[in-house]
Amino acid sequence: IGNPKAIDLWLDVVDDPRLRSDQLTDLTPAEVVRLGELMPVAVAADVMDTLDLHVVVDALRVIPTPRAAAVLDALESDRAAEILRELTPAEREPLVAAIPAEHAAVLRGLLTWPDESAAAHMVPEVLTVGGTVTAAEAIRQVREHSAKMRQDAHIGAYVFSVDDERRLHGVVSFRELVLADADTPVAHLVESDVITVGPLTDQEEAARVVVAHRLLAIPVVDDDGRLLGVLTSDDANDIAQEEATEDAELQGGSQPLEIPYLRASPFLLWRKRIIWLLVLFVAAAYTGTVMQAFEDELEAVVVLAFFIPLLIGTGGNTGTQITTTLIRAMSTDNVRLRDVGRVLRKEMATGALVAAAMAAAGLLRAWTLGVGGPVMVTVSVALVAIVLWSSLIASVIPLLLKKLRVDPAVVSGPMISTIVDGTGLIIYFTTAKLLLPELAGL
Amino acid sequence: IGNPKAIDLWLDVVDDPRLRSDQLTDLTPAEVVRLGELMPVAVAADVMDTLDLHVVVDALRVIPTPRAAAVLDALESDRAAEILRELTPAEREPLVAAIPAEHAAVLRGLLTWPDESAAAHMVPEVLTVGGTVTAAEAIRQVREHSAKMRQDAHIGAYVFSVDDERRLHGVVSFRELVLADADTPVAHLVESDVITVGPLTDQEEAARVVVAHRLLAIPVVDDDGRLLGVLTSDDANDIAQEEATEDAELQGGSQPLEIPYLRASPFLLWRKRIIWLLVLFVAAAYTGTVMQAFEDELEAVVVLAFFIPLLIGTGGNTGTQITTTLIRAMSTDNVRLRDVGRVLRKEMATGALVAAAMAAAGLLRAWTLGVGGPVMVTVSVALVAIVLWSSLIASVIPLLLKKLRVDPAVVSGPMISTIVDGTGLIIYFTTAKLLLPELAGL
Repeated sequence: IGNPKAIDLWLDVVDDPRLRSDQLTDLTPAEVVRLGELMPVAVAADVMDTLDLHVVVDALRVIPTPRAAAVLDALESDRAAEILRELTPAEREPLVAAIPAEHAAVLRGLLTWPDESAAAHMVPEVLTVGGTVTAAEAIRQVREHSAKMRQDAHIGAYVFSVDDERRLHGVVSFRELVLADADTPVAHLVESDVITVGPLTDQEEAARVVVAHRLLAIPVVDDDGRLLGVLTSDDANDIAQEEATEDAELQGGSQPLEIPYLRASPFLLWRKRIIWLLVLFVAAAYTGTVMQAFEDELEAVVVLAFFIPLLIGTGGNTGTQITTTLIRAMSTDNVRLRDVGRVLRKEMATGALVAAAMAAAGLLRAWTLGVGGPVMVTVSVALVAIVLWSSLIASVIPLLLKKLRVDPAVVSGPMISTIVDGTGLIIYFTTAKLLLPELAGL
Repeated sequence: IGNPKAIDLWLDVVDDPRLRSDQLTDLTPAEVVRLGELMPVAVAADVMDTLDLHVVVDALRVIPTPRAAAVLDALESDRAAEILRELTPAEREPLVAAIPAEHAAVLRGLLTWPDESAAAHMVPEVLTVGGTVTAAEAIRQVREHSAKMRQDAHIGAYVFSVDDERRLHGVVSFRELVLADADTPVAHLVESDVITVGPLTDQEEAARVVVAHRLLAIPVVDDDGRLLGVLTSDDANDIAQEEATEDAELQGGSQPLEIPYLRASPFLLWRKRIIWLLVLFVAAAYTGTVMQAFEDELEAVVVLAFFIPLLIGTGGNTGTQITTTLIRAMSTDNVRLRDVGRVLRKEMATGALVAAAMAAAGLLRAWTLGVGGPVMVTVSVALVAIVLWSSLIASVIPLLLKKLRVDPAVVSGPMISTIVDGTGLIIYFTTAKLLLPELAGL
């Protein structure tokens, strides 16, 4: 890594951004500084565009400020802002101050938007033309603009027609503009019914619109209809993937890590996990209380205890299947609040089918353990009741949370299992009391 | 919906593809046929591009063949092939036969690739030019080509330079081509180090490459280096999202549905869920055997039963947290096989921290139930052992499956819980036998 040739060779051979990120992580700070000196700014910007965000941030922390600022200046504004957001204000300020004033102002502007808003991820430097120009003139303007700006194919995919106050009037794809006759007025080419989002639209919602309409970029427009920038489809993608990761982590019963797994320390993992573990532990503690309440029954018919893990496990599994499917369908916008009736009917019908199958399985298992007819029936009836109960709460709770505007993904498998554990025990022992003659007097 | 004006109005007002799909689902077949007659083919193709796949398939089943074939012909080839894949061969054949021969041959070609391959999702009609032309000539060729073909901005984002046998030599973005000087040879503009995938590359892997490099499309190239088509980023996106949905469903302990949740009948839901429920039930059945084996201990100290749900629940929760985080990290390519050492060290360190916290919580809970010192210690020690054991198997099993080339996402939360349930009981009762004087003789 000591000379420019070696760096070129490395970039040629190691093509995969993930592998590059890994190998850069293994360098000492001194080596990173040396690499930063040897790599032309444009190349560094290109490479950093696809590297892991945290690797880039770590690198910019050690590279001397003027060099780091030059690289940030060469990056697209949304990427530069994303990097700056990861730095502390004390680290950020000198870097931004070293970037040419005009671009620095743009970056400062981006940093003022809230973290999870569409505007925080947009690129402000979009291609605009007046409504009265011809296609040929518009292309000339784009050419001029592009010479000044670093612009990738996502950002440059659309050309926007705006008025003097930058109010958005229409959009035409760069492609159509080029392929149109040179003297066609742009006004004839643009689509005036533009799909837009507001700057404070939630990033997830904005990403969904980009994906649903298969756009390359979506304009971000303020309340007065002024064009602020575009959110590109690659960023929309990243947002959708991050949300899927967060949902998966929540569903597994942890707080989302928010950084790549391999960069998380055991202490951070512990912090993200222990909260829910303790909450669930406290919630599950009442299973002990339930068992204590039925202590006499348990002592009278000890074999009842044999089926406890099986029954509550099945209840938890049934519920987990439902919540995970439902929550994923909600976060991909395939199930909405108004579908609540259809969901409940579907899940209760499915629950009845599942209950029938599990009742048969329970009967068979109780028979193989040789516990006698009455206990066999008790296990079977309790399974039916537990499966139906679990189906009900697993379908209702996510919808209810959505209604209350809480992210339904917090209903994890472990949470449903915990809820079903205690209530399932009550169902089981109550069934036993009703069906077993030896418990009649207790 | 009776006249063209009303349809235009509807398209204007209902902008959201999901809502359109929903409303179309509510139409009678006769209404769908009428809609198909009234809507111009180009408009229908545009609308169908973003509609739910299954709504489109249902519509094409009822619309008369000539009309349906005309719409399919107007769609991009990848979308048309995707739709045709959903039809039975008997439904498909007359439709394909009614499409103009040249395009029909292209579609037949696409349908021969395996479902999950990159080639099944590609668009074969890409922009190619010879290596010796100038930028201006290349643009003229693109213009000519585009007049014949329906092409969106994703497909047309890159222009490929190929030789007489269609072997890929380089790529230049349409944008750079337009912005270059008119007489620059294309050979000077192209990047010859092109990132490609093979036709049989797994769709998921191909999608990952598109996303990692932030491409708009990736060329699909056969073993001889011949360009077969491109996989566009919007399709890559869809693939990544579908995989995330499948993973989520597997993680919740079901078979993936493969169709949108609201379209799944209770019977289909039942089929997708019951298999795993029964497998887990059989696996969990040995908890009964374990309990039976420790029946004497349980009768001697009935209070031991109070902690069973709490202990095995905590073990399951700990394991579920680890597998979901790990499996998501693997499927987003953030954890690879060679990271196995780092993962195990990280998880065992985290497990130790979690075990310490849970031991304290267990002690406290046992104390509040007033079960006496020896049982308190037993519960606490058992919790430590169960958490460490659960951490170990939850980190090892996904990595092991990956090594064996089995999708690690099959390790669901319910599966880990089930494994921990039985083994956790053994750990608990063994601990009790070692620590409780009244069980010493048993």
